[in-house]
Amino acid sequence: MTTTPMTTTPIPTPAATPPDILRCAYMDLVVTDLAASREFYVDILGLVVTEENDTEIYLRSFEEFIHHNLVLRQGPVAAVSAFAFRVRSPLDVDLAEAYYRELGCRTERRANGFVTGIGDSVRVEDPLGFPYEFFFDTEHVERLAWRYDLQGPGALVRLDHFNQVTPDVGLGRGYLEDLGFRVTEDIQDADGVTYAAWLRRKDTVHDTALTGGNGPRMHHIAFSTHEKHNIIYICDKLGALRKSDLIERGPGRHGVSNAFYLYLRDPDGHRVEIYTQDYYTGDPDNPVVTWDVHDNQRRDWWGNPVVPSWYTDASLVLDLDGTPQPVIERTQSSEMAVTVGADGFSYTRKGEEMPEYKLGHQL
Amino acid sequence: MTTTPMTTTPIPTPAATPPDILRCAYMDLVVTDLAASREFYVDILGLVVTEENDTEIYLRSFEEFIHHNLVLRQGPVAAVSAFAFRVRSPLDVDLAEAYYRELGCRTERRANGFVTGIGDSVRVEDPLGFPYEFFFDTEHVERLAWRYDLQGPGALVRLDHFNQVTPDVGLGRGYLEDLGFRVTEDIQDADGVTYAAWLRRKDTVHDTALTGGNGPRMHHIAFSTHEKHNIIYICDKLGALRKSDLIERGPGRHGVSNAFYLYLRDPDGHRVEIYTQDYYTGDPDNPVVTWDVHDNQRRDWWGNPVVPSWYTDASLVLDLDGTPQPVIERTQSSEMAVTVGADGFSYTRKGEEMPEYKLGHQL
Amino acid sequence: MTTTPMTTTPIPTPAATPPDILRCAYMDLVVTDLAASREFYVDILGLVVTEENDTEIYLRSFEEFIHHNLVLRQGPVAAVSAFAFRVRSPLDVDLAEAYYRELGCRTERRANGFVTGIGDSVRVEDPLGFPYEFFFDTEHVERLAWRYDLQGPGALVRLDHFNQVTPDVGLGRGYLEDLGFRVTEDIQDADGVTYAAWLRRKDTVHDTALTGGNGPRMHHIAFSTHEKHNIIYICDKLGALRKSDLIERGPGRHGVSNAFYLYLRDPDGHRVEIYTQDYYTGDPDNPVVTWDVHDNQRRDWWGNPVVPSWYTDASLVLDLDGTPQPVIERTQSSEMAVTVGADGFSYTRKGEEMPEYKLGHQL
Amino acid sequence: MTTTPMTTTPIPTPAATPPDILRCAYMDLVVTDLAASREFYVDILGLVVTEENDTEIYLRSFEEFIHHNLVLRQGPVAAVSAFAFRVRSPLDVDLAEAYYRELGCRTERRANGFVTGIGDSVRVEDPLGFPYEFFFDTEHVERLAWRYDLQGPGALVRLDHFNQVTPDVGLGRGYLEDLGFRVTEDIQDADGVTYAAWLRRKDTVHDTALTGGNGPRMHHIAFSTHEKHNIIYICDKLGALRKSDLIERGPGRHGVSNAFYLYLRDPDGHRVEIYTQDYYTGDPDNPVVTWDVHDNQRRDWWGNPVVPSWYTDASLVLDLDGTPQPVIERTQSSEMAVTVGADGFSYTRKGEEMPEYKLGHQL
Repeated sequence: MTTTPMTTTPIPTPAATPPDILRCAYMDLVVTDLAASREFYVDILGLVVTEENDTEIYLRSFEEFIHHNLVLRQGPVAAVSAFAFRVRSPLDVDLAEAYYRELGCRTERRANGFVTGIGDSVRVEDPLGFPYEFFFDTEHVERLAWRYDLQGPGALVRLDHFNQVTPDVGLGRGYLEDLGFRVTEDIQDADGVTYAAWLRRKDTVHDTALTGGNGPRMHHIAFSTHEKHNIIYICDKLGALRKSDLIERGPGRHGVSNAFYLYLRDPDGHRVEIYTQDYYTGDPDNPVVTWDVHDNQRRDWWGNPVVPSWYTDASLVLDLDGTPQPVIERTQSSEMAVTVGADGFSYTRKGEEMPEYKLGHQL
Repeated sequence: MTTTPMTTTPIPTPAATPPDILRCAYMDLVVTDLAASREFYVDILGLVVTEENDTEIYLRSFEEFIHHNLVLRQGPVAAVSAFAFRVRSPLDVDLAEAYYRELGCRTERRANGFVTGIGDSVRVEDPLGFPYEFFFDTEHVERLAWRYDLQGPGALVRLDHFNQVTPDVGLGRGYLEDLGFRVTEDIQDADGVTYAAWLRRKDTVHDTALTGGNGPRMHHIAFSTHEKHNIIYICDKLGALRKSDLIERGPGRHGVSNAFYLYLRDPDGHRVEIYTQDYYTGDPDNPVVTWDVHDNQRRDWWGNPVVPSWYTDASLVLDLDGTPQPVIERTQSSEMAVTVGADGFSYTRKGEEMPEYKLGHQL
Repeated sequence: MTTTPMTTTPIPTPAATPPDILRCAYMDLVVTDLAASREFYVDILGLVVTEENDTEIYLRSFEEFIHHNLVLRQGPVAAVSAFAFRVRSPLDVDLAEAYYRELGCRTERRANGFVTGIGDSVRVEDPLGFPYEFFFDTEHVERLAWRYDLQGPGALVRLDHFNQVTPDVGLGRGYLEDLGFRVTEDIQDADGVTYAAWLRRKDTVHDTALTGGNGPRMHHIAFSTHEKHNIIYICDKLGALRKSDLIERGPGRHGVSNAFYLYLRDPDGHRVEIYTQDYYTGDPDNPVVTWDVHDNQRRDWWGNPVVPSWYTDASLVLDLDGTPQPVIERTQSSEMAVTVGADGFSYTRKGEEMPEYKLGHQL
Repeated sequence: MTTTPMTTTPIPTPAATPPDILRCAYMDLVVTDLAASREFYVDILGLVVTEENDTEIYLRSFEEFIHHNLVLRQGPVAAVSAFAFRVRSPLDVDLAEAYYRELGCRTERRANGFVTGIGDSVRVEDPLGFPYEFFFDTEHVERLAWRYDLQGPGALVRLDHFNQVTPDVGLGRGYLEDLGFRVTEDIQDADGVTYAAWLRRKDTVHDTALTGGNGPRMHHIAFSTHEKHNIIYICDKLGALRKSDLIERGPGRHGVSNAFYLYLRDPDGHRVEIYTQDYYTGDPDNPVVTWDVHDNQRRDWWGNPVVPSWYTDASLVLDLDGTPQPVIERTQSSEMAVTVGADGFSYTRKGEEMPEYKLGHQL
């Protein structure tokens, strides 16, 4: 089993050329009740079904033209089988395979892909213990951007990003930067502890983020809407369906990324973010934004509290045999502990006390 | 001093004809730091200054044509001097005076009004201990509905309603129904205890509401925007100004009224709601909606928690001499106690447990 | 047959008390292809079906609690059978009957109503030749305001108003003011010719409007959405359905009413407006806004042109026997003639020429 | 003087490596009345002033971190001095210089840049006669994405694209593809005539587009807002300022790009588009969308007409001496001629007639 995350020694930088990653492309997700998950992702969230069978559902967002952005797969344990990234060319799949082999990671190559609609791919158990997939080859499907007749009031138009929980964010960040990701924002404290980092390939704030905590685990997968009212509608609909308890946190405005957000929990507890309106990050000298972990506006620009479960809960990830990866404890200080409630401290204006009604939120 | 609220015997129905009330029109509000209040209501919220002097600021919303919707008055104690209602004709001011005299309430009539821009008015200490004003005569000012060049992204276009805290909601409701208000919605429990009631004259869900608690106190004053994004902008602006701690609760969707809302606290702690999109209530047989106090979607349709301060904090109200009215304790059960946290119980689906992350919100 | 509209002598003011009208409530509309109309009003616009049979469909908006706001009735000639107004009490139906009898108008009273879901009603052929109905009694149905699960991206939440074409607006305005309507806005020229007037009972800009032209005819029926994006969505959906040719005019911002609007044409050519965000008009001294017919921002605040068909086309109205009323020609000057294209003149800033690209719109 | 545009022989593909272009970055625009232009771009549109002097104003959008997106420069003739693109590294400026030299184009290199805030740059007279600039070096300024206190209701958050008029779109498209641009959408007819093409470097529908017509001329520069209501507000504000005649076309929904749009004319007649919500195009196999020139929804998804001036008017461009480039006539068929009015033909559903009120738009 991988104990890499326990070490604090940096992950070596391979001599091999990293693959040219385009973007996060899809997540392969194991759910324990496919019918219940279908109700959540299709009936409630309105993702588009590309195809489905008794054990799998392939879903995409309305502006997508590749086969899918999410695979729901019936299985015994709720977990993530793969975080899949699309690369620029078939050759980049070879590069990915060689890159991870040099890192000493287990890899598996399949010329016909691991899932329907995807061709030649490689899956790896990465140094942080996450199952990553890299592919170029995919079946094109209709881009439904113009199909307003099919789009509901909360239409999800793109897959935006993944979010991964890992014990040592600094370690993971170095590894992902070597792989070609660029950091756009992070959260640190005065002692230089990093609590989270956002990393991108496409021109948005992130394709994936690292959240400090016990891991490897999946924190969330995020889909985009066009406007804020689309996200508000999803909340209103959940209320109408008497399922508002699926709302874990938000809606709100992030400090980090400046995006408008909502966090939901699916029937297995997998976390889904609905997200809109971050900013262009495509220039190589795009300014990195570092937030103080004690800044009460870093995770919610309005200073609304982060519910404890958002810090503590996350989904298991699987190795290439489909076995859950062991969860390694974070030894560095915890963002929840240093910010929430009586133990913690956070400020709106550095050095000033919070009013009672804000503390009231956090007791 | 009035001890009427302590009795549980109904307030008698006068033989006199009640005045024909059009709508809630303005609040006369005492603030302890006029400059700080001006920054909040003018610089941050963008209300329109009709006129001002060293001790008073007269403010209105963008679609208003009467002189003002809010008076900020420098004073020693933060409190409400008057909840002012506009009546249909000058004669209705006479009717109001006679009506309250028959109720044995103290009244004061001023032919030239109590404040600038308002003519012949009567102020009363009502049976619940609140200072009510009734007037018809007012100076017309420019309706700035078309002045988009002056309207900011969070433009407040109308005064929507008042909200009053009183110990016995059932008692107050009967009195206001006699006065000509109609109940549109309320919150009750299985034992018939009423926790809150919404009452209207104009064709919206309310001109004022009664919230059960220690009173007489003012719970909030509410202004409307056109759309939800206008309210979201106000939060974003407060974040940019590093004043997000002025956000007490929300934004969210109310169950009661179905409106989108936000609660702020001004520099004196006076509560201001920003509100949009309730429904038409103008028919005499408009259906009354009664909510179960344990329904977790009644106050927030998304099931987000009500912060304790929202239940406990409110502003003092003044008698006609400008002395704060004594606050009488609510003896009936408290909505906060029966719903929030370990003592309380609330549900999304009747009879079902809440998930941990929702309870997490409420510990 | 009524030739009243031809006279220029005012319609006499009855001694009888007019009924207390609450609001425009529903339109009884004859369509020539019920299936095609159902596709337009139900499948495309998403109005709620209260009930239907082989020859009639009863539709309502999402916030409505009375039985319907629109009746689609299969018939030989596309026309309006009734403009129905709800009154405050059963007694007001008697008042309406007496009022129109005194005016010498033909009336018909039906204790069980003219349509399903409506009780005791009177229909009249009014002095302008329009079929008006007055009723109080109606079946209550579920108000779907909270049913976001049923509301699409272009949800129509209320019936807002009617719009009637009549040759002599001044004449019609006097009659409706006697009936208890109040004018909120109008369009005139320097010679005092009135081109259109907006009249209200509920607290909005209008329950009906009079548009100068050959009449009696029905110009349009208008439904409200909550926000502007809901209206934009309807356009986007029509594009996706390859039915954008149903868009006659807009979307845009009205000068008159300050509302955001869109005009569609149904399969029979009946005009439907989608409308949102006018202002409160409930005070008796609500300021009347008069617009210059040459002001290019009066009908579209952005100065976009009014398509000629919007001025010329309208629907027939029926007498109480179901026979189309003869259409009387407007003898006063035509708004289209005095404003559009080479014959006409309009300005953005009084006295200044329009730029070529604006004239380009109007050739 | 360059007569290159007159030839129909393809522009040769250089052996030199093209520069790695990141995105369109700024336009250097000559205006004849700097004060009038400042009112338009700063007071009305709310672009951020980075710095200014008596003859130049440097403006940027709210999410920009490079020095500027637009330079307004006082000059004798309204024209474009440069379409400036940012490249990935300093080395790419050398590559650009070599690339155009090989093409036989006139180039000028300035180590300290042509404008304030930009370092080492090369400007060229490209084969189509346009002044292109390439630079990497720029001064960083504050990204105002989080400064909601400064952002108005119509906040422009990004520079999105340029649009250029050229006689032979096919010729220009081949040249820009060699330079590294990728086509995302185009408009053609059955005979294979190309009327317009959209080309991108960043992950949006375009960084620049080619519109068939007499050229070289600048058709427009486009800035993005976050949401559609921001664009609607700009129209509302222009109405309030009695400047609605600056609105040339829209607002509307594009077929091409699927974006929501508005076209304005500045005091010199330079065209500015306000634009929001196109789709991700970053994959190398992003599907190209080809529209039929007769499809009435291609330029406006709602089938609203394109005003003739939008086809005919455009701004001059300057050579490196500041002299206007001669305008070469388009010899291929004109989109306006084949689609608008009596001469032209367009359809909503292929083969079907348009209704009168749509034709009414186009007479």
